[in-house]
Amino acid sequence: MKFFQVKSVEETFQLIQEMVTPIKETMTLPLFDALHFVLAEDIIVRENVPNFRRSSVDGYAVNAKDTFGSSETMPGFLTVTGEVKMGKEPPKAVGSGEAMYVPTGGMLPAGSDAMIMIEHCEDISGLLNVYRQTAPGENVISIGEDMQEGTVLLTKGTKLRSQEIGALASQGILEVLVWKKPIIGYLSSGDEIVPMESKDLQIGEVRDINAATIGSLVKQWGFEFIYGGIVKDSREELERRTKEMLEKTDCLILSGGSSVGTKDYSVEVIESLGEPGVYVHGVSIKPGKPTILAQAKNKPVIGLPGHPASAMIIFHLFGKAVVDRLQGMTANHAKLTFAKVTKNIPSAPGRTDYIRVRLFEENHEWYAEPILGKSGLISTLVKSEGMIEISYESEGVHKGEQVPVTLL
Amino acid sequence: MKFFQVKSVEETFQLIQEMVTPIKETMTLPLFDALHFVLAEDIIVRENVPNFRRSSVDGYAVNAKDTFGSSETMPGFLTVTGEVKMGKEPPKAVGSGEAMYVPTGGMLPAGSDAMIMIEHCEDISGLLNVYRQTAPGENVISIGEDMQEGTVLLTKGTKLRSQEIGALASQGILEVLVWKKPIIGYLSSGDEIVPMESKDLQIGEVRDINAATIGSLVKQWGFEFIYGGIVKDSREELERRTKEMLEKTDCLILSGGSSVGTKDYSVEVIESLGEPGVYVHGVSIKPGKPTILAQAKNKPVIGLPGHPASAMIIFHLFGKAVVDRLQGMTANHAKLTFAKVTKNIPSAPGRTDYIRVRLFEENHEWYAEPILGKSGLISTLVKSEGMIEISYESEGVHKGEQVPVTLL
Repeated sequence: MKFFQVKSVEETFQLIQEMVTPIKETMTLPLFDALHFVLAEDIIVRENVPNFRRSSVDGYAVNAKDTFGSSETMPGFLTVTGEVKMGKEPPKAVGSGEAMYVPTGGMLPAGSDAMIMIEHCEDISGLLNVYRQTAPGENVISIGEDMQEGTVLLTKGTKLRSQEIGALASQGILEVLVWKKPIIGYLSSGDEIVPMESKDLQIGEVRDINAATIGSLVKQWGFEFIYGGIVKDSREELERRTKEMLEKTDCLILSGGSSVGTKDYSVEVIESLGEPGVYVHGVSIKPGKPTILAQAKNKPVIGLPGHPASAMIIFHLFGKAVVDRLQGMTANHAKLTFAKVTKNIPSAPGRTDYIRVRLFEENHEWYAEPILGKSGLISTLVKSEGMIEISYESEGVHKGEQVPVTLL
Repeated sequence: MKFFQVKSVEETFQLIQEMVTPIKETMTLPLFDALHFVLAEDIIVRENVPNFRRSSVDGYAVNAKDTFGSSETMPGFLTVTGEVKMGKEPPKAVGSGEAMYVPTGGMLPAGSDAMIMIEHCEDISGLLNVYRQTAPGENVISIGEDMQEGTVLLTKGTKLRSQEIGALASQGILEVLVWKKPIIGYLSSGDEIVPMESKDLQIGEVRDINAATIGSLVKQWGFEFIYGGIVKDSREELERRTKEMLEKTDCLILSGGSSVGTKDYSVEVIESLGEPGVYVHGVSIKPGKPTILAQAKNKPVIGLPGHPASAMIIFHLFGKAVVDRLQGMTANHAKLTFAKVTKNIPSAPGRTDYIRVRLFEENHEWYAEPILGKSGLISTLVKSEGMIEISYESEGVHKGEQVPVTLL
């Protein structure tokens, strides 16, 4: 059997990037079904946006130099020669000493090089009184200023959020090549775990809560979830069911195995699934120390701690990193926040602690109030809106200290 | 026509809470389909969790007083009388001077009142050497400590996240009464707006980008989205199509109408849909000043600014508040974060500014780098990971100042 040293949180994230191999299969999707998929191609800008000089205000297109020196007390005067309609070409060019009305989003006429806002001028029977000067290019969006033809709009490995969908739509790109989304399997083990629908629990029995929390997170992140049921404490049975589930899925999550016997053989079972096997066995984190991460035949396997709260926190941190990487993401969007803690929280150096917190605002500052309770309590998760990290170098945080918060 | 004063951001959020009436229809859903639905009933704890005294560690159940005074140098000695199996009742009680092995999650035997961790003792041929003292209740989760029978577990109006799904599962509650999710309709207007699939744009034309960004956000939040197409600038046509869409949906979003003529009559059209009508017309916010909020026959109507970036930011802020309230949510979970700005950003007092930012971490601090660009640029949204708020009282923020960030 391999010998494992407990890894730090940073080492664990690093190892996930190195060990998890992204899915190979791609698919072409209509843009509107592609939300939260990951691009499997670079997208190049096909058309300049805008493809005409566009006004960013309601006002008049002018030659900027005609307005130089204009002010409230010494207005300039220009002749209004017409109006540009939205979505139409201007009726004619703007000459020296002339001005033409252009609405927000309208096209600038030839000859003009700036816009003056309606708030800064007044059309008195065709004579425009100009109360402020404008500079060349002011209030004008030039051709290609938003997106320049031939440049890279989005890179391979980008997760498509609503703004990326909008950017693609603006280019008239209505189909994209993305990586297939991984299918996530889940298997519970432990003699004490009973199906969620069980009535009248016997002494010692607990319902399979992790299936509910982990399953909802998987769905929330937009992946398909396959529930594999509960395996009673038996090495042979666990081995058989684990292999069966791994066949059907792209990533397998194992929960439980909290009895000492199970703990021993669940690592061996995971090792038996394929090369390169287990690469993290134990993380210096609280809660969640007994986390197992493995890679079997290009499929990630995650062994979660049995406590519902620990399992959820570990899955939020490492499970998300694993499935994001599996889905082909090259960068993780920041999802951290900061708040001031309301109490002193001691912590052991050499271990990263995650403390559940309730967040509240007071005088434009955010505060994190630790929700104290044993790590097995699911009620603490319901009360919590985030978790704070106390890094492994730290002996704890002091009341009033600013700390990073991950939102739950 | 009513006269409207521009509202502050806080007044607008306040008005949304007052004016939007939650949906009345409820439905019963299987727990696993209820993620992101809002509870239409209080949930009372039916069973104590745990329903037996549970160990939170691997170790030995003892009488705490038998360990008093034990230390590394002066160990105490107890007789090991057996082992508790996971999910099973203990074989017998623990008497004075005795200890019984209990795994994490296992049941404490009668007669014992504390656990001593395996790390702090050693079983030498049935004689337990105890190297540390333990206190009554230590490492034990008592009956009902997580959830107490008869207390309120979740209140009506709670949006179900994965942790709430887990809490319900732990109680064996596999069906919940929730409010129906609102159906969100969307209609674009403006002579310059053309369908997204349009090839070779004519001068002045822009594709219907807002349909893509707003539609994706609606889907991301878990609601059904109905796209109503594009209305050319015509008051009659806008009135007819708006009424038609409002019939089919629970909430209608209107985008565009950026020409001066359209701006005038779109408010009138919204007013004509039903009482009480428009309650916000103009918000002191940048971008997004020309926001319209109305309530017609118990259905919210939102008039968004035409610029894609402004429309998305406004919809993130006020649109989300409207649909959350419509769906019956009583409290909004905090979704704000903080970061230090990397540049001075000036702002006009009396107006709330929202600046798009890129977020990055350096030395355990988060920084927000403003993405500067005109508010019509969709590319700025793609580069952005959040937006910062500069409150209406402020004349701007200084480099290094800590500011709230909303994640996009």
